[in-house]
Amino acid sequence: MQRIAVLGAGSWGTALSLVLADNQHEVRLWGHRKELIQEINETHKNQKYLPDIELSDNIKGCTDLRKTLHDVQIAVLAVPTKAIREVLQDVIKVISHKLTIVHVSKGIEPDSLLRISEIIKEEVPEELLQDVVVLSGPSHAEEVGLRQPTTVTSSSDNLAAAELVQDLFMNQHFRVYTNPDVIGVEIGGALKNIIALAAGITDGLGYGDNAKAALITRGLAEIARLGSIMGGNPLTFSGLTGIGDLIVTCTSVHSRNWRAGNLLGKGQKLEDVLENMGMVVEGVRTTKAAYQLAQKFDVKMPITEALYAVLFNGKEVKDAVDSLMARVKTHEMEDLVNISENRC
Amino acid sequence: MQRIAVLGAGSWGTALSLVLADNQHEVRLWGHRKELIQEINETHKNQKYLPDIELSDNIKGCTDLRKTLHDVQIAVLAVPTKAIREVLQDVIKVISHKLTIVHVSKGIEPDSLLRISEIIKEEVPEELLQDVVVLSGPSHAEEVGLRQPTTVTSSSDNLAAAELVQDLFMNQHFRVYTNPDVIGVEIGGALKNIIALAAGITDGLGYGDNAKAALITRGLAEIARLGSIMGGNPLTFSGLTGIGDLIVTCTSVHSRNWRAGNLLGKGQKLEDVLENMGMVVEGVRTTKAAYQLAQKFDVKMPITEALYAVLFNGKEVKDAVDSLMARVKTHEMEDLVNISENRC
Repeated sequence: MQRIAVLGAGSWGTALSLVLADNQHEVRLWGHRKELIQEINETHKNQKYLPDIELSDNIKGCTDLRKTLHDVQIAVLAVPTKAIREVLQDVIKVISHKLTIVHVSKGIEPDSLLRISEIIKEEVPEELLQDVVVLSGPSHAEEVGLRQPTTVTSSSDNLAAAELVQDLFMNQHFRVYTNPDVIGVEIGGALKNIIALAAGITDGLGYGDNAKAALITRGLAEIARLGSIMGGNPLTFSGLTGIGDLIVTCTSVHSRNWRAGNLLGKGQKLEDVLENMGMVVEGVRTTKAAYQLAQKFDVKMPITEALYAVLFNGKEVKDAVDSLMARVKTHEMEDLVNISENRC
Repeated sequence: MQRIAVLGAGSWGTALSLVLADNQHEVRLWGHRKELIQEINETHKNQKYLPDIELSDNIKGCTDLRKTLHDVQIAVLAVPTKAIREVLQDVIKVISHKLTIVHVSKGIEPDSLLRISEIIKEEVPEELLQDVVVLSGPSHAEEVGLRQPTTVTSSSDNLAAAELVQDLFMNQHFRVYTNPDVIGVEIGGALKNIIALAAGITDGLGYGDNAKAALITRGLAEIARLGSIMGGNPLTFSGLTGIGDLIVTCTSVHSRNWRAGNLLGKGQKLEDVLENMGMVVEGVRTTKAAYQLAQKFDVKMPITEALYAVLFNGKEVKDAVDSLMARVKTHEMEDLVNISENRC
């Protein structure tokens, strides 16, 4: 039994708390909204983010970051990418011991173009940071809450840390594999949200499964092209955090990014979509970051570029999708060959 | 404008006839059932296999194989894998000139373990065979009939033949790419039906999207492991005929193999499922062939082996799936590494 802090009481933080509690760990679930934390402690439910799921007694909600962290060695960071720096700045103010930080967010910071583990290392001084681990994979929180079978990957520069996290979370329903390729795991997890937005758009436009399968296939190729050039292992993109997460995000009604894209495809305006979602749509920020990365590394990313034009330059969704479909290319291997060239 | 024979008036043969007719080619659609061919000629519909789709005047149904083939140089072979040898034996009796055969079936012959292009070369003497081309990819016939965007791959040992087929079919809705890797294209197309059956089973058992994404990811890995050892290019399995076709078959309600698996997962008996489907479920035969191939090449294919036990040895579906989920494996790369080792 371990004592573990989970920072962020949204759907994913709550679902992961449930997995840890199922494994007999003592969980401190931190959130800044008093009513939400009160609800968790009094009713053992988080109706807004994980409706109808009973949370066990060994999940204790807490709004005080110092109390949450003072006697734990492991913190799971489950806040939106946009909030990570702010939360980490608060964390380092209240701790005086080393933490292992397990992050479960999926995104890349625009402009700085940093992955989440890089942001963590930038914000947390070495003397307060034991290890950084990323836990990622095809895992809708709703299904984890229902204890449906789920498999994810634990990745760290330090294998022992990845294995520690594997041991903490692994159970009959929740299978955890290790993979040493932090870059590939983080890039795959982040960039799949772009393709999910695009898949939502084609579905919203009324295109079918054939079109969506082609889009996902092309999307995987462009993620792998960029990720390999950035130092990821090309094989990682064929694994759980690559194609696995891409499939679940593009084909499931649970996916926020898909739903946002779907509304765009049906003709809603971006501002209205984001306002109506009520949750963070990571794919929008990630599209900006990936567009910048594609330019920096001189990698062709046609889907990302088309989506960037829609989200940030007001291009019509139908025009963007139709020009993607009509791309002049005849040999399939042209699309895939760059992966091979960058293979280690 | 070319004159082209399409052999097989099922859903796929009919949909491909429509694509060719849209491109102004003259299509002779051969089938052995008189009523079906009569319906196509008189009502320009094929209600049983492609309901509610209007077929153009330049698709002429024909039940006479000699008349169908006597003045054409290109024949599209769109019959179930099981019927291919018989149809080819009839074909060579009625022609005296060379044919280019474009096959669009997905399967491997049990016991002989031959791919379709190999069967064609075995049955058709050299003096009657110009080229063999395989056309494959994520392409539900229903959506092609509705002219929804679709992308496929044309593959042949002879690039000129693959490009000829590309030119015949390519249009605004139906995009055709070439890929020289016939082995990879055929293996990917055949083996995805096994994973689709398994995905139908997990869905039928009530497991969620997380489980299905993991299954598809693992499925791709085992297809690529076998296919690479058989001589396919590992990159092909990341393309349209690999992951693309796998996704569309595992996640679409149009897929027969998924539907058959779904009924198995819900507790129906195999005999009843096959009887009620009314169409050929290629995945059942392919499971047998792939199981034999895995033994022959000494490749680990846990999903194929589990499905084989269900289909041919009466194992309970839930036991088979649960033992798959509980496999003792902790490092993700173990699953993927064989692909890399066999990379060309």
